[in-house]
Amino acid sequence: MRASVLRDGRMVYRDDVPDPVPGPGQVLVRVRACGICGSDLHFAAHGARVLEMSGELAGAGGGMDVDLGRDIFMGHEFSAEVLDAGPGTETHPPGTLVTSLPVLLSDKGVEPIVYSNTTLGGYAELMLLSASLLLPVPNGLNAKHAAMTEPMAVGLHAVNKSGITTDESALVLGCGPIGLAIIAALHQRGVESIVASDFSPTRRGLATVMGAHQVIDPARGSPFDALNAGVVFEAVGVPGIIDDVLLRAGRGTRLIVAGVCMESDRIHPFFATAKEINIQFSLAYDMAEFTESLRAIADGDIDVSPLITGEVGLDGVGRAFDDLADPERHCKILVTP
Amino acid sequence: MRASVLRDGRMVYRDDVPDPVPGPGQVLVRVRACGICGSDLHFAAHGARVLEMSGELAGAGGGMDVDLGRDIFMGHEFSAEVLDAGPGTETHPPGTLVTSLPVLLSDKGVEPIVYSNTTLGGYAELMLLSASLLLPVPNGLNAKHAAMTEPMAVGLHAVNKSGITTDESALVLGCGPIGLAIIAALHQRGVESIVASDFSPTRRGLATVMGAHQVIDPARGSPFDALNAGVVFEAVGVPGIIDDVLLRAGRGTRLIVAGVCMESDRIHPFFATAKEINIQFSLAYDMAEFTESLRAIADGDIDVSPLITGEVGLDGVGRAFDDLADPERHCKILVTP
Repeated sequence: MRASVLRDGRMVYRDDVPDPVPGPGQVLVRVRACGICGSDLHFAAHGARVLEMSGELAGAGGGMDVDLGRDIFMGHEFSAEVLDAGPGTETHPPGTLVTSLPVLLSDKGVEPIVYSNTTLGGYAELMLLSASLLLPVPNGLNAKHAAMTEPMAVGLHAVNKSGITTDESALVLGCGPIGLAIIAALHQRGVESIVASDFSPTRRGLATVMGAHQVIDPARGSPFDALNAGVVFEAVGVPGIIDDVLLRAGRGTRLIVAGVCMESDRIHPFFATAKEINIQFSLAYDMAEFTESLRAIADGDIDVSPLITGEVGLDGVGRAFDDLADPERHCKILVTP
Repeated sequence: MRASVLRDGRMVYRDDVPDPVPGPGQVLVRVRACGICGSDLHFAAHGARVLEMSGELAGAGGGMDVDLGRDIFMGHEFSAEVLDAGPGTETHPPGTLVTSLPVLLSDKGVEPIVYSNTTLGGYAELMLLSASLLLPVPNGLNAKHAAMTEPMAVGLHAVNKSGITTDESALVLGCGPIGLAIIAALHQRGVESIVASDFSPTRRGLATVMGAHQVIDPARGSPFDALNAGVVFEAVGVPGIIDDVLLRAGRGTRLIVAGVCMESDRIHPFFATAKEINIQFSLAYDMAEFTESLRAIADGDIDVSPLITGEVGLDGVGRAFDDLADPERHCKILVTP
């Protein structure tokens, strides 16, 4: 079958990947759409550092068994169509459109569908999913919008982690896909004051569309001037952004770190001490949040269509990775095998 | 009157400080005991850096107007005896033993009693307090124990900020006065598993006396091995300790930063992201916590006597600052003018 794989830091098209065979409890699916995530771009550019970091955490249950010298399968924001099931496995009828947490259960245990030399991801014609984790896509929602379930769930989780109430002010720093998903979740929750900050006018436009009440160009003014006290969502994920919040945010601020910074970073703990800031780091989502994210999209509570700015085939993934560097051109590119 | 002042980084004895005169709403008191705080040692050694840091925060309401080229008054953990009151000011009868939040209200506004060229602190024979903030010391509690109200309130505040429940495990890193105050507050709250870690055997002994159920020498084993999940109190306040917690603590850990680190620090946000750690920075206490701290000491719920390891006069403050560098010899030294 066809797939796009990471090889020497670049996405490479292949037409000779063996078709996967579902084992017990597994389902063979045909990928319909798979979003390109910023973490995939980061892994392509800095995979060694990511593996080194997760290796350092291995003692605490982290660690990833990935060989950068071999082809790597990726793609964890997918929708797909059921084709067949493994031995003794009951599942939805062939043709059913589904999505799933990006996790494959097998006799080897629990394998994340994220970066792997063996477990296929959504940048492929076919992949395996776990029968017990499949979510049928409701309401006739189309496959492209269904593929947005995963990134929108990341935003919902960050908002849930924040414990924000509707009368608190929210400031979202960075309006990439995760920042925009956070804005959508804040809007859906009914938060009355959502301020969003991004250097890109296109991204600020998307922030407004997703529900921000005010947008700020940080090159022209501090986003903290607009926020008296409240909850700050950091969806930038680069070194320096946390310390900048600690310095500029108000007393008692709750900072939700939703950006994933894979490098070491410098902070001034005293800035946080002086203002008794709380920092909640947020990652991924749980099953209930993933399900709720799909429901919100399918019921029309959240319109994800403005976020989808491009579509490529499996042979276009490499160029799409390059194109995503420009925030004026793109937000989310979907791979439609 | 006599006082000990900070001059060129050293505590210097003076006998020529003018007696303070209470203004309206102020009370003249005779200091009975004043504890030496680690933050005073830090300010003596790194005052310029402290002022620089608070200057950086000035835009957010920080900033301290202190001239390092002139004598500086310090001492914020005090008990004192009422002598006289300012014009039109009603207060407790002369001779009443009191303590107070270290804040002086005057026509210039609210002045913290911490580091000042003008506002006297507890390293002096006499000082001014605010009539409205005085707390009479109850139950015939002696002046030395009453002077421990302030550091014990810092520990109580950190525990309150943590929201810890009695069935959660607590790990306290660092058993200086603040770590020990945290242990005392955890013990008083009824937390059933309190683990404390310090390189010093004397400090570990004090931790046990104050209520720790288990003590660990971090040179011989990781304190995190003893803790499955729970709440970590960082009372060390040096660069590196936060990142060490992020690396070694378990998933979902709540980290309360009670140590005051005045230098810049390096962290790996990814360690915290991967485990969705929450960091709550904690500073000082509120009026209710200060009052509760005094009550707990006066009622015998917390015995502070083991923490008091030395006593000096105003002419011995300089040497006491040096002696406090050795955790085997000292925990809290009181200045008794």
